[in-house]
Amino acid sequence: MEKLRNSTGCTGTVFPLQYSGTMQNSTISSREHRAVGFVLVHAGAGYHSESKAKEYKHVCKRACQKAVDRLRAGAMALEAVTAALTELEDSPFTNAGTGSNLNLSGDIECDASIMDGKSLDYGAVGALSGIKNPVLVARRLLSEAQKGKLSAGRIPPCFLVGTGAQQWALTHGIPPCPSEKMATKFSLSAYKRNKRKMELAEKIETEHHFLKRQRTSSGTVSEIIEPISSSLDTVGAIVVDQEGNVAAAVSSGGLAMKHPGRVGQAAHYGCGCWAENAHDARPYATAVSTSGCGEHLIRTMLARECSTAVQAEDAHQALLEAMQNKFIVSFVFSQCHLLYNSSPFLASEDGVLGGVIVLRCCKCGDDQSSDSLRALLVEFLWSHTTESMCVGYMSAHDSKAKTHISRLPPGAVAGQSLAIEGGVCRLGAMND
Amino acid sequence: MEKLRNSTGCTGTVFPLQYSGTMQNSTISSREHRAVGFVLVHAGAGYHSESKAKEYKHVCKRACQKAVDRLRAGAMALEAVTAALTELEDSPFTNAGTGSNLNLSGDIECDASIMDGKSLDYGAVGALSGIKNPVLVARRLLSEAQKGKLSAGRIPPCFLVGTGAQQWALTHGIPPCPSEKMATKFSLSAYKRNKRKMELAEKIETEHHFLKRQRTSSGTVSEIIEPISSSLDTVGAIVVDQEGNVAAAVSSGGLAMKHPGRVGQAAHYGCGCWAENAHDARPYATAVSTSGCGEHLIRTMLARECSTAVQAEDAHQALLEAMQNKFIVSFVFSQCHLLYNSSPFLASEDGVLGGVIVLRCCKCGDDQSSDSLRALLVEFLWSHTTESMCVGYMSAHDSKAKTHISRLPPGAVAGQSLAIEGGVCRLGAMND
Repeated sequence: MEKLRNSTGCTGTVFPLQYSGTMQNSTISSREHRAVGFVLVHAGAGYHSESKAKEYKHVCKRACQKAVDRLRAGAMALEAVTAALTELEDSPFTNAGTGSNLNLSGDIECDASIMDGKSLDYGAVGALSGIKNPVLVARRLLSEAQKGKLSAGRIPPCFLVGTGAQQWALTHGIPPCPSEKMATKFSLSAYKRNKRKMELAEKIETEHHFLKRQRTSSGTVSEIIEPISSSLDTVGAIVVDQEGNVAAAVSSGGLAMKHPGRVGQAAHYGCGCWAENAHDARPYATAVSTSGCGEHLIRTMLARECSTAVQAEDAHQALLEAMQNKFIVSFVFSQCHLLYNSSPFLASEDGVLGGVIVLRCCKCGDDQSSDSLRALLVEFLWSHTTESMCVGYMSAHDSKAKTHISRLPPGAVAGQSLAIEGGVCRLGAMND
Repeated sequence: MEKLRNSTGCTGTVFPLQYSGTMQNSTISSREHRAVGFVLVHAGAGYHSESKAKEYKHVCKRACQKAVDRLRAGAMALEAVTAALTELEDSPFTNAGTGSNLNLSGDIECDASIMDGKSLDYGAVGALSGIKNPVLVARRLLSEAQKGKLSAGRIPPCFLVGTGAQQWALTHGIPPCPSEKMATKFSLSAYKRNKRKMELAEKIETEHHFLKRQRTSSGTVSEIIEPISSSLDTVGAIVVDQEGNVAAAVSSGGLAMKHPGRVGQAAHYGCGCWAENAHDARPYATAVSTSGCGEHLIRTMLARECSTAVQAEDAHQALLEAMQNKFIVSFVFSQCHLLYNSSPFLASEDGVLGGVIVLRCCKCGDDQSSDSLRALLVEFLWSHTTESMCVGYMSAHDSKAKTHISRLPPGAVAGQSLAIEGGVCRLGAMND
C-alpha cells in the first residue's frame, strides 16, 4: 500500500492496482463467465465504532450478494443496484429505510434517488414517510417516466416529495409501512437522548441571553453539552453490468433531529448519485454515490463533480484532486466569510464531512476483436473526509464480497483531511 | 441588430453592444450616480399572446423598479433580487405565488430558490402551500443558515419541502395565506378545462385499450384532444449591486395538473438559479435564472451550466453554444433511446422547452484607479427555445425599465430552435 501526502495537508492512502475479480485462467464455470458485472456499496461515511463494524460489514456483504445474484441472472445495472439498495435500507443499523434517524417531530422522513447511466434517466423522492424502501419509489418514478407522457400530454414527474410522494407510491402499488415498524430501539433511544441535549442547550442559551447572531461564535454551549452526534450512515451502491451499463443509487434517513420537510443530498440531482455510460465525448462509463452531511454535499454537487473528474487519465489522482479542490477547499472558500469573521475555533469544528464511492470502466482487450469478446476493466475507489467509511465490493466472478472499513490515518482531522483507496478489477470477456 | 444563423440550424438574434444605462456625461444627479446596480427579470419562457403581452411587460417593469428602488437605497443584490421576485410572484398573470397553476388535486404548491453570489449561500423551498411569497421563505432559509449552527450543533436546513416547509415559515413569522386567495379566476377556469381534457383523454385511452407502453408513441389521443397547455411562465430575477455582488432567484407554481409533491427546477440547486461573484478563478461575476419545463431544466442543470459557460471571452457565443450543446443536444441525446425507438413524430412534439436570463459583469476602467473609482461593465443576455420569453431590465441610472417580448424567428420550431438576445451596460464609477 502506498501512502500519499500532498501539499494541501490532506492525507491519502491507496491500493494501487489491487486486483479483485477473476483472471482469465480461473476455474469458474462458463455460466458465470458470461455473466459479468461488478458492484460497490457503502454503508455511509461517518464514524463506525469497532463494535458496530461487524454489522456494517455484514450488511454490505449481503447487499453485494443481492446485486450479483441479479447480475448473474442477466439483470441490467439498474435492477442490480436497486437490489443492493433495498438490502441496505432494510438493515436496522444503517440510516436509511428501517433504522433511519428520527426528525425533530420524532418522525422518519427519507430521501432516495437512482440514476440509469444508459438513458441518463433519474428518479428521486424527498421527505418521504411511511414507505419501507424509498429507493423502490425512486426506481418506479424513473421507470414510469420512461414510458413517456401521461394522459393529455402531461410530463411525468422525476422528483416527488412529502405526502404527495407517499400518495403516488401507494397508487402505484407500493405498500405502506407504519413508521413504528421503521423505527428501531436504537433510533428511538437516540431521539430521546438528542431531544434532551437540545432542550438543555436551548435552556442554557436562553439563560445566557445569547444574541442570535452570536450563536456560531460561542463555544460555551458546546463545551457544556456535547453536540448531537448525527448518524451519517446513508447508504449507496454503484454497479456495472455485463454490457458496460452503469447505474447508481443512494438512500438516507437524513440528519438526526432535522426539521420536518428537510431534503438532503440523497434526493438532489447531481449531488447524491450519478451514472453515465461511455459515449463519444466520454471514454469511461462512471458511477458515483455519496454519503455525509447533505448540506455540504449539495453545495459541492459532489456526485457529478467526481463523475466528471474521473474521466482524466489517472482516476485515483483525479478523485483526490476533486475531493480536495471541489469538496474541502470549495466548501471552506464558501464558508470563509463566516468562519474567519466569527471564530477560528469553527474552522476545525465546521469541517466538510462526506464520502464517495466511484467506479469507472472501459472495454479492454484486443481492438480487433468484437465487442462481445472484449473484457471490462473496472477501476473502483472510495474517498472520505469523515473518520471512517464502510464499503463492500464484489464482481460476478467472485464467490463472496470483500468488505472494508476505511479510516483516516492516525492524527488526521476529520473534515480537513481525506482518505482515498481503491482497486482494479478485470472482468473476463463474455466467452472466455 | 445583427442576425446570426449557425450550422446546427438554430437561429439567434443579438443586439451587439446595445447600450443601456447612463454615459459618464449624463445629467443624472450625483446621488443616483453613487447608487449603481442593474437588474434583469423574466416573467417566463413559454407562449405570450399579444393580448397578454401588456400585462407581462407591466409586471416586469414594476419588478425592475422595486429592485432598483432597493439598490438606490444602498441595498445589496440579495435584497434587491428578493424585492423583484416578490413583485413578480404577486402578479395574478404569472405562474408563481398568486396565480400559480393548480395541481392535480386543485391545490397550489410552489417552488422557489435564491442564491447569493458573495457567500454562495442558497435557500430553497419545494411543493410549498399556503404562503403568498415562496421566495421569502427561501430567502429566510438562506439568512437563517448564515447565522450558523442551531442548538446542540445541528446544521440548519437549506432546502425544505411540503408541510414541513410551511410550518417552518410560520414559526419564522411569515404569515399564512389561504390557497383560495392565491388562486385566480384564470387559474381556476384553466384547472376545470384541464381536468375535462384529462378525463376525456383517459376515457378514450381506456376505450381504445391502449397498452401503457404505447402511450408515448400514439398520436391518436393528442389528435383528438389538444394536450394540456401548461403555463410555463415561472418568474426570475438577477441583480448586480454597487459592489459588484450578484444574486439570482426563481419562483414557480410548476406545471399545470402536476402530481401533488412534484418539485421542479425552481427548487433544484444548480437548475433554477445560480449566482457567483468574481474571484481568483473566475474573472466575471455571473448570475442566471431559468424558466421552462422543470424536468428538462433539471436534467441539464441549466443555470449552473450557463453560469460556467459565460466565463468564456465572448459571452453571447458561449451562451449560444451552451444552449445548443448542453440543453437542446444533451437532452435529445438522453432521450434518443425513447424518441427514435418510438416515433419520429415525438422528435418535434418532445422538444426541450426552456429559457434563461444571464448577466455577467466585471470592473472596468483605469487599472491604476482604486476599486471605488472603477465602473462596472454588465453584459446581459436572454435565450429561449420556447415560442417567446418576456424580460425586463433596468440600471440604477435609468428612469424607467425597458421590457421586451423575445420571440423565435418566423418558421422556427419551438423546442428545437433558439433565440438569443442581449445588451451591454456600463455603470458609472462611484464618483463620476
